[in-house]
Amino acid sequence: MRAFLAAVGGLLLSSAWLALGQNTPENEFNRRRTLSFGIIIFPGWEPLDVFGPLEILFSLSATYKITLSIIAKETGPVSAGYPPHIMVPGQPPADYSYMLQPKLVATHTFRDAPALDVLLVPGGVGTMALEQANDTSIETFLRNRFESLDYLLSVCTGSALLATSGLLDGRRATTNKALWGLVTNHGENVTWVPSARWTHDGKIWTSSGVASGIDMMYAFLKHLYGETDPVLIAAMNGIEYAPHTDPDWDPFSIVHNVRTCNSLLGRGQQPS
Amino acid sequence: MRAFLAAVGGLLLSSAWLALGQNTPENEFNRRRTLSFGIIIFPGWEPLDVFGPLEILFSLSATYKITLSIIAKETGPVSAGYPPHIMVPGQPPADYSYMLQPKLVATHTFRDAPALDVLLVPGGVGTMALEQANDTSIETFLRNRFESLDYLLSVCTGSALLATSGLLDGRRATTNKALWGLVTNHGENVTWVPSARWTHDGKIWTSSGVASGIDMMYAFLKHLYGETDPVLIAAMNGIEYAPHTDPDWDPFSIVHNVRTCNSLLGRGQQPS
Repeated sequence: MRAFLAAVGGLLLSSAWLALGQNTPENEFNRRRTLSFGIIIFPGWEPLDVFGPLEILFSLSATYKITLSIIAKETGPVSAGYPPHIMVPGQPPADYSYMLQPKLVATHTFRDAPALDVLLVPGGVGTMALEQANDTSIETFLRNRFESLDYLLSVCTGSALLATSGLLDGRRATTNKALWGLVTNHGENVTWVPSARWTHDGKIWTSSGVASGIDMMYAFLKHLYGETDPVLIAAMNGIEYAPHTDPDWDPFSIVHNVRTCNSLLGRGQQPS
Repeated sequence: MRAFLAAVGGLLLSSAWLALGQNTPENEFNRRRTLSFGIIIFPGWEPLDVFGPLEILFSLSATYKITLSIIAKETGPVSAGYPPHIMVPGQPPADYSYMLQPKLVATHTFRDAPALDVLLVPGGVGTMALEQANDTSIETFLRNRFESLDYLLSVCTGSALLATSGLLDGRRATTNKALWGLVTNHGENVTWVPSARWTHDGKIWTSSGVASGIDMMYAFLKHLYGETDPVLIAAMNGIEYAPHTDPDWDPFSIVHNVRTCNSLLGRGQQPS
């Protein structure tokens, strides 16, 4: 089956480049190589931040050679449940143990993760807990790995970790619109884009909140494998997801009143 | 924080029923009770079938009392990776170990799962492997629990398991449009709806493929908590997902040519 798909892929690559029109030598290279993909998780990772993008990648892995490393401080189960953290300044850390606690298994640590081509950093309330605990292990990993990565992606409040690591300095980025003020006070000289489903600046891609990660991932994979890549199109039809393909589509910047929040209320505030 | 939200909820419940208009005493009951929610997993569960619906539930669990049991044959990590199974009749089982293998931790078994109010059955290629192995443990669990459930939900090819269990007899249901023929040859006297994002017949809800589970879950939670439930609306805006709210919206029945498949090619066939 795989040999058959590879043969079909080979035919497509050798004969249909002109027909497909928008494919580049880079797309061809990406279709042939084994892509080493990493996803960072931490206590309080947001479920769909991880599993939206991962679903498309999972489907593609039936055809394209992709490896996945799920990277955390330690290997083993890591809960999406909110860790205790301070929600209201001056108040003690709140207990969220009553919330749901699905656990995904981390396969690698920051110490033993393999060489990576693409690294995705999800968001989640856990990013706040890490910050309050002065835990900068993710930022250190990002700085150590950035040069050797082809691409660095973040979903939702994951961009706060990119910003704190310094990797967004001088770049355009976006983030969750519901927590806009809490994220955009991170980093120096970041052009935070208040209305965007996702942004793309050099090798860094950042998405808005949670579900937007699926749309960013589709746009990113078109960039990687080709605008009209038949394997990617089949994957999207297979998972029955109709992606938002306009990076400027962002009704949630209006719902969450981000422009007003940003210009009138200032940073760190949440519009009601 | 939780007490505050509960107080706000109480105010809403006592004063705003008329204003909200579409809420019922059942909605009020559901907002106050602890909802015991179960999700079945098996080797080869489809990632977004589980984590699309689960994302909304996860968000709601910050406010509403919800417990989650992730139920499998044994507790511990269960891989989404395709188990070896026969893809082409007459051929030996194919090996899919090169595919991605994210692992979710099962918290309960079919033997020790607690009493459940709602049970969700995802799909995934694993349903085919179970069938080929004559493993009917899920169907047995479904038949044993159905009477005591308030609702039974399936996503994607999960409806094949409901059909084989006999629980869809005499009911309307839908399933993945890419694998339509492979699912709809299960069950007796099932009215398989070829064009539907999801269906709802009595206490059974079934969705189309993969991503459609998010839309079904939103519709289901409106049914449970109220059409204009502010907590649910805030959750959807928080995860920045614009749901498809029309159960008849189904471009993928056209993409996958399901009507032609059904009427001209017959069951068990896959349109090209």
